[in-house]
Amino acid sequence: MGGKKGIEGEGVVTLLTDFGRRDSYVGSMKGVILSINPHVTLIDITHDIAPQQVSQGGFILSQAAPHFPKGTIHLAVVDPGVGTSSRRPVLIETSRYRFVGPDNGLFGQALVGERVRRVIHLTKREYHRKEVSRTFHGRDIFAPVAAHLSLGAEPDAFGRRITRIKRDGMPKPRLSRGTLAGTVLHIDRFGNIITTITSHHLTSDRVHLTVGTAVITRLVTTYGDAKRGEVVALIGSSRLLEIAKRNGSAARDLGIGIGARVILKVDPLTD
Amino acid sequence: MGGKKGIEGEGVVTLLTDFGRRDSYVGSMKGVILSINPHVTLIDITHDIAPQQVSQGGFILSQAAPHFPKGTIHLAVVDPGVGTSSRRPVLIETSRYRFVGPDNGLFGQALVGERVRRVIHLTKREYHRKEVSRTFHGRDIFAPVAAHLSLGAEPDAFGRRITRIKRDGMPKPRLSRGTLAGTVLHIDRFGNIITTITSHHLTSDRVHLTVGTAVITRLVTTYGDAKRGEVVALIGSSRLLEIAKRNGSAARDLGIGIGARVILKVDPLTD
Amino acid sequence: MGGKKGIEGEGVVTLLTDFGRRDSYVGSMKGVILSINPHVTLIDITHDIAPQQVSQGGFILSQAAPHFPKGTIHLAVVDPGVGTSSRRPVLIETSRYRFVGPDNGLFGQALVGERVRRVIHLTKREYHRKEVSRTFHGRDIFAPVAAHLSLGAEPDAFGRRITRIKRDGMPKPRLSRGTLAGTVLHIDRFGNIITTITSHHLTSDRVHLTVGTAVITRLVTTYGDAKRGEVVALIGSSRLLEIAKRNGSAARDLGIGIGARVILKVDPLTD
Repeated sequence: MGGKKGIEGEGVVTLLTDFGRRDSYVGSMKGVILSINPHVTLIDITHDIAPQQVSQGGFILSQAAPHFPKGTIHLAVVDPGVGTSSRRPVLIETSRYRFVGPDNGLFGQALVGERVRRVIHLTKREYHRKEVSRTFHGRDIFAPVAAHLSLGAEPDAFGRRITRIKRDGMPKPRLSRGTLAGTVLHIDRFGNIITTITSHHLTSDRVHLTVGTAVITRLVTTYGDAKRGEVVALIGSSRLLEIAKRNGSAARDLGIGIGARVILKVDPLTD
Repeated sequence: MGGKKGIEGEGVVTLLTDFGRRDSYVGSMKGVILSINPHVTLIDITHDIAPQQVSQGGFILSQAAPHFPKGTIHLAVVDPGVGTSSRRPVLIETSRYRFVGPDNGLFGQALVGERVRRVIHLTKREYHRKEVSRTFHGRDIFAPVAAHLSLGAEPDAFGRRITRIKRDGMPKPRLSRGTLAGTVLHIDRFGNIITTITSHHLTSDRVHLTVGTAVITRLVTTYGDAKRGEVVALIGSSRLLEIAKRNGSAARDLGIGIGARVILKVDPLTD
Repeated sequence: MGGKKGIEGEGVVTLLTDFGRRDSYVGSMKGVILSINPHVTLIDITHDIAPQQVSQGGFILSQAAPHFPKGTIHLAVVDPGVGTSSRRPVLIETSRYRFVGPDNGLFGQALVGERVRRVIHLTKREYHRKEVSRTFHGRDIFAPVAAHLSLGAEPDAFGRRITRIKRDGMPKPRLSRGTLAGTVLHIDRFGNIITTITSHHLTSDRVHLTVGTAVITRLVTTYGDAKRGEVVALIGSSRLLEIAKRNGSAARDLGIGIGARVILKVDPLTD
């Protein structure tokens, strides 16, 4: 928390992983970072991404990351290909943030709306731990790189520039014959079903949504507007269409999981 | 972590919510706070309050809050009425702390023993996020208010003073015909059953407690005094009567949940 | 975060407990620490050690602790004997760290490879909370001692030196008739089975491992080298032999829990 941090978000490192919280993995990463920069501010976004679910990790990151101050370093590790040549360890610099992690699509959704300045393939060994295991690049490559970045190291010092990254953004709903077909992106703690359909897809204050065997026609503006036990649609805090049940879990009641289809009638008034 | 923090707990913001840890909600709140005050110290009390269980949230807050340094800002969000007019967003200033969250009774138990100086209805929009969603006041109202408070903003700047707040304190045990009827407030991780009966209600070192179909007559001073597998009563670290099982879960074994009745004979010696 | 912290890890306190995250216990400990030293950096290693599983706590601590900067204070509480005379509250000073917690073997694995300088029995009441409960030494003894240590207090101030501590290190695999019998130390979030057998026990790049009813003969260097659904052995990031299943949980599939036996043929080539 030196002088730099006073200016912006310099010195803030967020962590998002699928490591869970009962193992030593997250603690080890934090120890490595603090050993390099003891003044860093470490903020957990979550460590409870479902194991190896890159797209879920990307969604959560895209929701939380933009709220952080300019200059924040977002360290994210959901990395089923760790230790193989199927993905490269990268640093992505945008006009507001630095993202550090595997180039496997994890950053795609968070990069929507960000201007990418540089992408660096993390090849310079002097910024990695002395011994790099093949199973834990979070500790051995990404943590030390994020820590050195937080000390002010130049992105180009970490490796060579590359021009392509994997950018699996959020899957776009598809329009056909008057219906829009989206999918379920995430189920939150309350059982709210978060879909890929956005507020821009809604043309009136009425909806006609089909998910599983359920049809939802009531659109409310907040959870409290629903009646006890009622299943409703609403635009959530992330501007995405959600399906929610007042005082209950919509996902459990409707038997809906991540990846399920959600069909929206484009003009519900012509029903 | 400027000069102010050296004096007291200025710059410490605690967070207690029912948001869980696998979503982006907590990360978003922290990002909003750090964007306003990058030098704040953020401490999680818990995010695992059972969804919408205001009274459980109030109990946990009341247990943890008093241990924090003077000047700490306690930000708490268990808010089933978010976005409706059923509750107001408030700032409660006591002689030691500032509490920020919904006025739905969440702060009642924590305010027992605190002297309330001012209560402010958070109406001033310039201290909220530019766009306030109707479903996430934690991020859009409470987080920015807590952050501005941590920078030294005056409570009166956030809105107008009000005189009444909802103060659902801990439900008091009721005395009738030589028995005291309390309830189960909380089940902790170890399966210990925490009740509304306090150390003041015990008149001797003997007890006669009925909970569900079980009768407990042994009062010990620490868990280790019980025999392996024995169910005992003791005064826990919060001065409340607890029912515990050595090397096991009392709650699971007795089939007891939050809200269950606990009957104490007032004078067990006259049995 | 004063000047001292700039030098090394002074001012970093890690926490490892079996308290879980849904109760007020961890928050209370942090409040007590911040009340004594508001400039401390608090880092959670985990609070999800299985209740009262001292050896699991010791393993996780031993994995995470060595990654922290010199000067870090490691506060660990897995303490089934709290409040009894069966264990002493201690401070263990090594050449790199200070460990604070119960003397019940919790620190044994972390002390392997550390040089112990002093062990102090924490008897000096002026460094404890005014009222010490018999059930929560984490809050009442260990937290304030760690906080005072982080302010620079001398170890000898906290009590008298003692010479013996309980050092239940990691159980050593036993050799007999050409086989090495180890045990399962930990199951991680991904279902990987972590054993007491180390990289030093492997004499070639082939293995013959028996765990439960399964025999594993394929040794890979990283998870990604396994085929989808294949169960393999590998040396994990902690240099211990692990059994893993690509895209699945080895522990669940093999029905293996903590403490299970793992048999390694010493010379698999002579099969």
